[in-house]
Amino acid sequence: MSNSGKLPGLASDAVLKQSIPVPEDFEEVKGIDYSQDNAYNMRAKDLIASMSTMGFQASSLSKACRIIDEMRSWKGKHKDELEEHEQTGEFDDDGFQKTTIFMGYTSNLISSGLRDTLRYLVQHKMVSAIVASAGGIEEDLIKVLAPTYMGDFSLPGKGLRDQGMNRIGNLLVPNDNYCRFEEWIVPILDKCLEEQQEAMKKLGSDGLNADSDAIWTPSKLIDRLGKEINDESSVLYWAHKNKIPIFCPALTDGSIGDMLFFHTFKASPEQLRLDIVSDIRKVNSMSMAASRAGMIILGGGLIKHHICNACLMRNGADYAVYINTGQEFDGSDAGARPDEAVSWGKIKADAHSVKVYADVSLVFPLIVAATFASERPQSK
Amino acid sequence: MSNSGKLPGLASDAVLKQSIPVPEDFEEVKGIDYSQDNAYNMRAKDLIASMSTMGFQASSLSKACRIIDEMRSWKGKHKDELEEHEQTGEFDDDGFQKTTIFMGYTSNLISSGLRDTLRYLVQHKMVSAIVASAGGIEEDLIKVLAPTYMGDFSLPGKGLRDQGMNRIGNLLVPNDNYCRFEEWIVPILDKCLEEQQEAMKKLGSDGLNADSDAIWTPSKLIDRLGKEINDESSVLYWAHKNKIPIFCPALTDGSIGDMLFFHTFKASPEQLRLDIVSDIRKVNSMSMAASRAGMIILGGGLIKHHICNACLMRNGADYAVYINTGQEFDGSDAGARPDEAVSWGKIKADAHSVKVYADVSLVFPLIVAATFASERPQSK
Amino acid sequence: MSNSGKLPGLASDAVLKQSIPVPEDFEEVKGIDYSQDNAYNMRAKDLIASMSTMGFQASSLSKACRIIDEMRSWKGKHKDELEEHEQTGEFDDDGFQKTTIFMGYTSNLISSGLRDTLRYLVQHKMVSAIVASAGGIEEDLIKVLAPTYMGDFSLPGKGLRDQGMNRIGNLLVPNDNYCRFEEWIVPILDKCLEEQQEAMKKLGSDGLNADSDAIWTPSKLIDRLGKEINDESSVLYWAHKNKIPIFCPALTDGSIGDMLFFHTFKASPEQLRLDIVSDIRKVNSMSMAASRAGMIILGGGLIKHHICNACLMRNGADYAVYINTGQEFDGSDAGARPDEAVSWGKIKADAHSVKVYADVSLVFPLIVAATFASERPQSK
Amino acid sequence: MSNSGKLPGLASDAVLKQSIPVPEDFEEVKGIDYSQDNAYNMRAKDLIASMSTMGFQASSLSKACRIIDEMRSWKGKHKDELEEHEQTGEFDDDGFQKTTIFMGYTSNLISSGLRDTLRYLVQHKMVSAIVASAGGIEEDLIKVLAPTYMGDFSLPGKGLRDQGMNRIGNLLVPNDNYCRFEEWIVPILDKCLEEQQEAMKKLGSDGLNADSDAIWTPSKLIDRLGKEINDESSVLYWAHKNKIPIFCPALTDGSIGDMLFFHTFKASPEQLRLDIVSDIRKVNSMSMAASRAGMIILGGGLIKHHICNACLMRNGADYAVYINTGQEFDGSDAGARPDEAVSWGKIKADAHSVKVYADVSLVFPLIVAATFASERPQSK
Repeated sequence: MSNSGKLPGLASDAVLKQSIPVPEDFEEVKGIDYSQDNAYNMRAKDLIASMSTMGFQASSLSKACRIIDEMRSWKGKHKDELEEHEQTGEFDDDGFQKTTIFMGYTSNLISSGLRDTLRYLVQHKMVSAIVASAGGIEEDLIKVLAPTYMGDFSLPGKGLRDQGMNRIGNLLVPNDNYCRFEEWIVPILDKCLEEQQEAMKKLGSDGLNADSDAIWTPSKLIDRLGKEINDESSVLYWAHKNKIPIFCPALTDGSIGDMLFFHTFKASPEQLRLDIVSDIRKVNSMSMAASRAGMIILGGGLIKHHICNACLMRNGADYAVYINTGQEFDGSDAGARPDEAVSWGKIKADAHSVKVYADVSLVFPLIVAATFASERPQSK
Repeated sequence: MSNSGKLPGLASDAVLKQSIPVPEDFEEVKGIDYSQDNAYNMRAKDLIASMSTMGFQASSLSKACRIIDEMRSWKGKHKDELEEHEQTGEFDDDGFQKTTIFMGYTSNLISSGLRDTLRYLVQHKMVSAIVASAGGIEEDLIKVLAPTYMGDFSLPGKGLRDQGMNRIGNLLVPNDNYCRFEEWIVPILDKCLEEQQEAMKKLGSDGLNADSDAIWTPSKLIDRLGKEINDESSVLYWAHKNKIPIFCPALTDGSIGDMLFFHTFKASPEQLRLDIVSDIRKVNSMSMAASRAGMIILGGGLIKHHICNACLMRNGADYAVYINTGQEFDGSDAGARPDEAVSWGKIKADAHSVKVYADVSLVFPLIVAATFASERPQSK
Repeated sequence: MSNSGKLPGLASDAVLKQSIPVPEDFEEVKGIDYSQDNAYNMRAKDLIASMSTMGFQASSLSKACRIIDEMRSWKGKHKDELEEHEQTGEFDDDGFQKTTIFMGYTSNLISSGLRDTLRYLVQHKMVSAIVASAGGIEEDLIKVLAPTYMGDFSLPGKGLRDQGMNRIGNLLVPNDNYCRFEEWIVPILDKCLEEQQEAMKKLGSDGLNADSDAIWTPSKLIDRLGKEINDESSVLYWAHKNKIPIFCPALTDGSIGDMLFFHTFKASPEQLRLDIVSDIRKVNSMSMAASRAGMIILGGGLIKHHICNACLMRNGADYAVYINTGQEFDGSDAGARPDEAVSWGKIKADAHSVKVYADVSLVFPLIVAATFASERPQSK
Repeated sequence: MSNSGKLPGLASDAVLKQSIPVPEDFEEVKGIDYSQDNAYNMRAKDLIASMSTMGFQASSLSKACRIIDEMRSWKGKHKDELEEHEQTGEFDDDGFQKTTIFMGYTSNLISSGLRDTLRYLVQHKMVSAIVASAGGIEEDLIKVLAPTYMGDFSLPGKGLRDQGMNRIGNLLVPNDNYCRFEEWIVPILDKCLEEQQEAMKKLGSDGLNADSDAIWTPSKLIDRLGKEINDESSVLYWAHKNKIPIFCPALTDGSIGDMLFFHTFKASPEQLRLDIVSDIRKVNSMSMAASRAGMIILGGGLIKHHICNACLMRNGADYAVYINTGQEFDGSDAGARPDEAVSWGKIKADAHSVKVYADVSLVFPLIVAATFASERPQSK
């Protein structure tokens, strides 16, 4: 190209292309107005409100709060207005239909300080059912017995193993905590086995029937553990007390599994059994019974898929909030956007849904502060 | 700072700091030597060899292949040299101890074209046990009944649901495939229930004992499904034929779960049961019996944790290759580096281990080409 | 393994390994105490305080705020206590040494609603120098001329191009905004060229000397643009007014570059010149003059490397806060942890530093609310 | 829900929804056929071919190779068929139009073993222009003077700084390498300054005019450095020899910047100047002149944006291959998909484009093996 003074038309046409008039419903990007009185040391709700027009994940976070507020405030018909066979799902204290909220979380969140936040939601009956991975069960119990500690992502594994310090990201769990857990749980497993054997002896092969509870299931064992731990700091305790089922189909995948493994030797030739068919029936039935269904999914993997799959049974959830760090490019379910679940019928096409791309620990405290904990609950 | 001509000592000392003499064992970074004859349209093994000194994930990929070659070529003592109680674990055709290789994969890999690669490994007995998520079981079976298709990550969910096309990343599965699966599996579930009921009637409450197989387990059902599908394209078929157990503690978390759910209505009041305690005993026992243990973990979530946890039973795996896209910053097990597993005793402190940060589909075909498939297997 | 009742010693030794007594200085993981009065609709500072012992990125976020509070509150010697040649760097209104804070941000943050937050920091002289990418300059100016709008990550590109709507993540910028920008900036560039030519005519070849300002530099042009835009919503306006230099070595990499390109035709044979050598001298000199240096780096790429590199000139920054979504596994500077910069002498070995793995939009509003904006500034 | 035997219609309708007949043009997912002779120790081209129907990033990788093959094999009109003003852009040895290929790479790739691959492409004139970050320039030169070594991502920064070992991901560069670089480059900078001053003295203020080359630009200095290094292992050497311009608008952002900074003191009051306006004109003009334009962008940040922005000048590139690990959720340009560039007119709506989500080091050796290096080049 010569260095002539002629303005290049190709370039200027491309660069200075005219746009259509801006549609009236377009929303301007704007941030915090620092001239306002509430712009300093902001409260959760004000911060979240300001983030809605900030763009990127700030907007997604704000939307997540809006959707959570929708799911927790939805109020359907009164029980008296419904036919008897329609009287399924959840109702508020005044007898109106409310959203059945499925909350899922991965093990690490219970290891983290988020456990207090999750416990708060269960304590105050703000969710209807939980799906967790195995560590999300046992770490809640273990924390009643002994604390978890702050560590660092870069502590070398060999030195930690020598000291018996187990690392979870930037957290440390002394291995003695698991020894204590073993002491605590073995007598309970003994008792569970005893109950199983008694029931089976009474019922014979009918003990395996649908209406029998001779065979333990993960959710039933979790409920028992919540009863036994009997401590107000525990998620499982409140779940038991508030009859909020906790599902964990792979309950053997962790320390409880280690203990169950050991127990097979102790109990031999008898063996405690944990059936997962009853639990899939139970979680799917909750989904089908729900007047409306909402999902709050913290993390990826099994807990995400399990809630979505349950919501397929009702042709899709009405509300969905995903928070995780997974990406879709590897085709994993963990990284899939809500819109992938729409294709499967796991989220309704017209549902309100959002994915927040973040470590849950970074955003969930703020989300809860701006929604479920925006006001002090009126009662326990 | 004035514009004087004085060279700033602070800056030059910092920038031009002397380094120690380079230690003799330092390895120079270098790449492909394109003057060589094998530098064009390279073969997998040559490419992998060149990548070892490239740095970043290229080096990790190369190391992954070295570790896999170590685990598949390790040869211990001959059976005759061992006491009877030491004669556990895996042996090669000549009677020498070999590595017990646990391979884990997530559902999406079976949906993808990697299924052929995974099947190849199972067909040729190159792995000893498998841990998969539920989709990793059923999608293998469904693909025998009808194909999965190429799609796109950005296809809108609503339109797909209207057409009954389920999206998995950039893949599409027509929902009719699941209808066919239902037709195929229901009679099998009927038969399984029948067998359960017969055995229970015979054994009574002893049917729950450890040495009874009246109660189905996920691995036992998977083995049966592999037998029934009877098709050489299937991973499950070869696993059944080659007696390679496939573990999937949360087998109900997917289409098989849907079918089991439906089946509870069909079979009522009888109910098929799937016990997960027996399977944890089985997988842990394999780990304890192994002379050496290697892990090849493709993806994150349950399948990763489950194999690691099993290897804790033997105080750590000897070899570990992780391939996934998870990151450690969120404290997830999915994103944890091998060194975190060292702190738990799940990988030995002196084990050879590596994590390759990549979508499995991108690197595993190359890895297998350069290792397990570097030569044509001598027999089926 | 036989189904005998013998507890496997290998497994129980591994699982129930004793740990060392917990060191006294270990900090327990804990979260929000919801029994407290300030646990509802929390304020930024309380939330951040609670997050410090939550683990994962919650702890990192809390640490980022602590470090920012340290850098903004550090108070050194009084000017009168210092030798004349020591009287360099920044001083507070009372004459005490304070931290020179280098803040870097990428273009997209100015496109987002974070612009108001960034402007707040500059308006109140809370930072000392800025490094931005080209879009971080021009989008600030363009927003004075016309707004940016909320969009969606999944809007198809073809339709948007037809309408002249440019997408930045989930934001939209009408192309007319760039047309307006062209109208606004061309007369300014004309004037700049005129000044360049006048000075050069006067100085001849001495016009290129260090103490001449005949040749424009990116920072000098940016300062002029800030003066010309003359609008209190603008970051550049306040940077000009508060004499806070903004560095952008690749200022041509964006719309300003397009305009400069067009201008070479308009002005031919004369040509405006932008020299980057003077600017590297200027930013490095600020680093060397600083009593203490702090870095707040929002995003990755050039802006991150440039600030780190400047801090090498003083043998390392004293404080460093990185916020970005990059990962180290690909060996990119964008993804490098602060500890990599320590190896280079860009961060001091004993500096306080942290990386928060997050989209900046998600956490920076909260960070600023809990630090720089925890109280209303006393004056503009 | 009662435990009745009635199959739930809501669930079965949702789960067993019929799909439309599979369109004829749907492509089945399939992987490697291990019964084939070429399925062992595969060659790059065969592997890539097999990956096209594997899904996820395997398919994207395969597509990237197809697009690269398209851009390198496109053949337009013969020079003799074109009007004189149309005779712009690149032509092959036989006089036919060919694609102008812009390749961008980040600094770390030159530090890695990929440098040999990048050099191969430049040596054999397989690309037309390069955009690099500053480290991508200097590390190429420094490697001629002394090697880079393999290290580890987890080596602690403090110890490394004490030893003068700079870490780049899992690579190490002894700081002495930079000392050698300083010795090598200072005399060259002296010479450059001398030439600048001579030309300016001759031309006076006209020395700044468009047709003058008195003022240095980054691309001009890089070309000179390539000439001076005079070593066949160097990318810059071959770029100089083959007249392939290398653009680097922020050339001061790295070791060269440090040297230029030091040089301002040495040369005072004279000062070398590097103008970035001429370079934006040069790169944009190449884009406008191109018959077809292709982009191969390795990494994110400035190098990605700069090539895209240049292609806007021609209303969009015809081919685009992105390889990086960035994600779109944070609204960064680094993470933006090709479709975002379509909205800006930087990629044509009907262009062939793909993004491969991967560390470049993992896939680019394979990509080049299957495309540019699928056959031995006929001549140097």
